[in-house]
Amino acid sequence: MDTPKPKAVVLLSGGLDSTTVLAIANNRRFETYALTFRYGQRHEFELDCARKVAKAQGVTDHVIVDIDLRTFGGSALTSDIEVPKGRSDEEMGSGIPITYVPARNTIFLSFALAWAEVLGAQDIFLGVNAIDYSGYPDCRPEYIAAYERMANLATRAGVEGSSRITIHTPLIQMTKGEIIKAGLSQGVDYGLTNTCYDPADDGRGCGKCDACVLRIRGFLHAGVPDPIEYV
Amino acid sequence: MDTPKPKAVVLLSGGLDSTTVLAIANNRRFETYALTFRYGQRHEFELDCARKVAKAQGVTDHVIVDIDLRTFGGSALTSDIEVPKGRSDEEMGSGIPITYVPARNTIFLSFALAWAEVLGAQDIFLGVNAIDYSGYPDCRPEYIAAYERMANLATRAGVEGSSRITIHTPLIQMTKGEIIKAGLSQGVDYGLTNTCYDPADDGRGCGKCDACVLRIRGFLHAGVPDPIEYV
Repeated sequence: MDTPKPKAVVLLSGGLDSTTVLAIANNRRFETYALTFRYGQRHEFELDCARKVAKAQGVTDHVIVDIDLRTFGGSALTSDIEVPKGRSDEEMGSGIPITYVPARNTIFLSFALAWAEVLGAQDIFLGVNAIDYSGYPDCRPEYIAAYERMANLATRAGVEGSSRITIHTPLIQMTKGEIIKAGLSQGVDYGLTNTCYDPADDGRGCGKCDACVLRIRGFLHAGVPDPIEYV
Repeated sequence: MDTPKPKAVVLLSGGLDSTTVLAIANNRRFETYALTFRYGQRHEFELDCARKVAKAQGVTDHVIVDIDLRTFGGSALTSDIEVPKGRSDEEMGSGIPITYVPARNTIFLSFALAWAEVLGAQDIFLGVNAIDYSGYPDCRPEYIAAYERMANLATRAGVEGSSRITIHTPLIQMTKGEIIKAGLSQGVDYGLTNTCYDPADDGRGCGKCDACVLRIRGFLHAGVPDPIEYV
């Protein structure tokens, strides 16, 4: 008889990175629970991608939580600030981008922690990347380590000493090209994913925002065609 | 001319503790922004209390954020599990109560952090108490310290080194009686607050759940009458 798989909560946006992370968690023989947020994004298309990916990868459960980050504003992704396009490498590499959503990963991880505690899961997977998103404070290894430490003091398990929460960030030191190669080797269908900060109504990527530019380059580096269409 | 007051985000449930904390923050000359959650509580009465308290204390803004913690279940406060009543001191003092909501303070603080970042506030106030709520993992000083450390790595300010987030927990080592005396000395109207985990439809406290028992005792210790009614 097989021993039961350990449960893991996987944060799934429906983008390239989180889709790859879900495949990695499944491949490591976790029973996966996918968690997606409707957080006031400009577009619902991202949620459709998350649903398709969760189904294609056979998660045990997929929950979409409504949280309205527009209440606070402060980011191009959740307010009327325009998404920047056609930025140079220098512009992309300097400072914190306007598409940074204040405390977003902290909020997402906190819901993942709540669900993990209810499920009895000790593992949370998050697709942050410190290379391509070096400008985001909440994508850095030192942030993840501090979050994990806090999480182990926040929960029942931490008090009772019965288990330990681990925040897995398997992509954190990978380039986009390496991420794509890793995902393809595990059978990920990137045709289901979307990456664009500002997609067209039919879901096609703009091809010009930072996220599209990094994705297109990643496929070039990986030496494989990007299966999605751009406007 | 007066220098502008620094801004602070204050987590406000409309209960006795958070109402006292708001008075303390105002008294320390912060410009206060109150943050309340509709998180699948059994009753809306708590939100009415928060609104009245925020108005009475003259906050600059009061935001009520919808988050549905019922999605995950796992607590008597957000599911159909019965709220325990008439528990002995020994029962109240042992283990983590069923009214503990998984990762609740972690989620609440994460929204406060997002708002603080957008407002440019460096101060967050939270009414946790390590004495009366010793069973809650996320009311302990070591948890708050770990949260603060994480918060300073999570945010724009942390990366740029331009400011520092402080999580203030002025009640953390006070007894309920001391909290009430502190609030009364700052003019708090406890008649606007509610504490009960399972109030009657008209908002009166049950008088028997852990929260009511601790409140009633607190007023006895403070030597003043509790202005609210019980069933």
